[in-house]
Amino acid sequence: MHASADTATVTDVAAYMEAICRDARAAARSLASVQTRQRNHALLATAAALDEQRDELAAANAQDLAAGEAAGLDAALLDRLALTPERIDGMIAGVTAVAALDDPVGRIDELAARPSGIRVGRMRVPLGVIGIIYESRPNVTIDAAALCLKAGNACILRGGSEAHQTNRALGECVAAGLAAAGLPAATARVVATTERSAVGHLLGAADEVDLIIPRGGKALIERVVAESRIPVLKHLDGNCHVYLDAAADPDRAHAIAVNAKTHRLGVCNAMETLLVDRAVAAELLPGIAVALRANGIELRGCPETCALVPEAQAASEADWSTEYLGPILAIRIVDGLDAAMAHIERYGSRHTDAIVTEHWSRAQRFLREVDSASVMVNASTRFADGAEYGLGAEIGISTDRLHARGPVGLEGLTTRKFVVFGDGQVRN
Amino acid sequence: MHASADTATVTDVAAYMEAICRDARAAARSLASVQTRQRNHALLATAAALDEQRDELAAANAQDLAAGEAAGLDAALLDRLALTPERIDGMIAGVTAVAALDDPVGRIDELAARPSGIRVGRMRVPLGVIGIIYESRPNVTIDAAALCLKAGNACILRGGSEAHQTNRALGECVAAGLAAAGLPAATARVVATTERSAVGHLLGAADEVDLIIPRGGKALIERVVAESRIPVLKHLDGNCHVYLDAAADPDRAHAIAVNAKTHRLGVCNAMETLLVDRAVAAELLPGIAVALRANGIELRGCPETCALVPEAQAASEADWSTEYLGPILAIRIVDGLDAAMAHIERYGSRHTDAIVTEHWSRAQRFLREVDSASVMVNASTRFADGAEYGLGAEIGISTDRLHARGPVGLEGLTTRKFVVFGDGQVRN
Repeated sequence: MHASADTATVTDVAAYMEAICRDARAAARSLASVQTRQRNHALLATAAALDEQRDELAAANAQDLAAGEAAGLDAALLDRLALTPERIDGMIAGVTAVAALDDPVGRIDELAARPSGIRVGRMRVPLGVIGIIYESRPNVTIDAAALCLKAGNACILRGGSEAHQTNRALGECVAAGLAAAGLPAATARVVATTERSAVGHLLGAADEVDLIIPRGGKALIERVVAESRIPVLKHLDGNCHVYLDAAADPDRAHAIAVNAKTHRLGVCNAMETLLVDRAVAAELLPGIAVALRANGIELRGCPETCALVPEAQAASEADWSTEYLGPILAIRIVDGLDAAMAHIERYGSRHTDAIVTEHWSRAQRFLREVDSASVMVNASTRFADGAEYGLGAEIGISTDRLHARGPVGLEGLTTRKFVVFGDGQVRN
Repeated sequence: MHASADTATVTDVAAYMEAICRDARAAARSLASVQTRQRNHALLATAAALDEQRDELAAANAQDLAAGEAAGLDAALLDRLALTPERIDGMIAGVTAVAALDDPVGRIDELAARPSGIRVGRMRVPLGVIGIIYESRPNVTIDAAALCLKAGNACILRGGSEAHQTNRALGECVAAGLAAAGLPAATARVVATTERSAVGHLLGAADEVDLIIPRGGKALIERVVAESRIPVLKHLDGNCHVYLDAAADPDRAHAIAVNAKTHRLGVCNAMETLLVDRAVAAELLPGIAVALRANGIELRGCPETCALVPEAQAASEADWSTEYLGPILAIRIVDGLDAAMAHIERYGSRHTDAIVTEHWSRAQRFLREVDSASVMVNASTRFADGAEYGLGAEIGISTDRLHARGPVGLEGLTTRKFVVFGDGQVRN
């Protein structure tokens, strides 16, 4: 006896999750013989369903919003939860854009002949089954399902309980898209229960699920990492630095420092600490400070910074490690490139760090020696983004080292196998 | 107070392992600014030390062999443990070959301009600190240290207690090579204690160690996977298949089936099950069976196979899942390509599988749909090997899906970060 994954009311969570995972594995296997055209058909049909079901989506979202208000969710959370017509437009545009991307699956690279006569290449193939565990923003349901499907994977979507009705309604649009293309519903399914234990069952299904991607706050990520028996692709902190070198072009230094902090505040690729070479601090910092203050940024500096910038408060040791995600910036004056890189090594989160300089060798050393997912010369940290990098769309930004590092697009949702073309070769 | 990692006698295993891991992390950081030439110097000096210290190596190995005999190790284990002059020659040749490989570190691929004007590329960089946990064969000490160092990683080498003196002596050759090139000893260090708890400490050092590679029997791999808090790159089973399609060239079918089973028996890329399309079974199987029997291979078949090949015994259900690593072959007659792929899906280990056919579309389907690390057309499974694939050398064959799949060479010991070249760009 086992529960059906299509049951709307889940009574036995363990049996339900087992069925969900098993069905996803079967769907992933059947995707191996599905052509690009059919996957794109499902994506475009999902976009159409989102457009047709705007009323149902609004009604479901209103239920979640009412429940959230009753439960006392704060305004920021309610805003993230809200499914406005513009946000539905955004999801439709996103799915349509994913359909238009090149299919990564089946591409063979590096095919070359070996001395034995065999030809060896590497074929890009789907990862298999991907579990997505996320909070709040319901658009993840559509974005993640679209990217996983495009890359030939099945996915299991487990959103936050505060968005359950919205995610359910979005899941029905995906189901309609899959059905229109003749693909099984288990190819991308929203978990139909808000039971907390469902997450544990998902994280333990190592035989059926190949990768877990958590998206949300640090507490969620840490719980997933601690509990999972399955590889996790995750994003932790974005404590990003800009270092203004002694040979920085002053205009570029000013523009990049201000943009990296103020362009958008609550994002992981915003600058959180500005490092400045002592040789140019007196020249550069006061003007940058004025511009930052004019943008409402609170400044916290080392003693030398405070001497140059009277509006700056004294930074504490904790400031160097803090990802503010808000209108605060830490500033430190350092003794050249080595001190800057040592600071980044000690306090940084290996997400994105930039140097502003016209000095060739120092730029090369920074590129090579700073151990972060994105390392930049003369550009704003805000460019660390799948769309800006040309990945088409991103499922997230990985701060891990293995498999995928930095913005993760379709390629990170695939793997490569070796293919060998022979003419009867045997080994001697 | 903490133990020094150079202490020959380890009294506090926890403190010793903590020091080992911390020192390895520091060594990995310092490797970021070490040039190719210096790493190659260390490799060639290690090769020279192996040649100079043949007497010391032989004496250390004799200690292990004597202890192993006294402990009643079987002949196969003692043979694997033995460090013959030829095996030392092999290690010297191996390290020298690794020194001659192209340096993967610092290579930038896919550098291209984006609409914003930034140029984005991907730079190959070391993984960091790699822990290698292995059994028996002492050559792993040298092979793994050489590959890790070439790729710019620090490594911690923990071999089996039965090879402890041999590994210690080999570690001294590596230390001599590192010292000759001015690199810290912690760049590649053999763990100086045989305490079993040392492995647990290594597997728990998630802040200091980036990857664990276990090499050995299934029990070792499973222990490592169960205990590790660090990503593991592993090799489980090699239950490899050859499928003889209805459109197989008879001579190729015969040659590949016989080579894949008999070229070498105890290896992970040897064929363990032969699948034959019913349409050609009567034509192909009797001759292949004669050749296999002449090579001392015991045959276990499905009922139809047994009818065609009287020498074959009846295969049990368990035979289809078994990696014999010896002179036994399971044979099954199947109903065409779909049945063959379903058998491989159900019983295979996703290591290496081959089809023999002249039929274009069936070859393409097999390549695309068989979900194994290596998929071959008209070639012996025995080619699934880093050297045959042109990787230069391999640290192992991964049956994982993430990061590295199939034979793992230098590339699998590195990761890629994004590099951004700007001219002052900011985001609008």
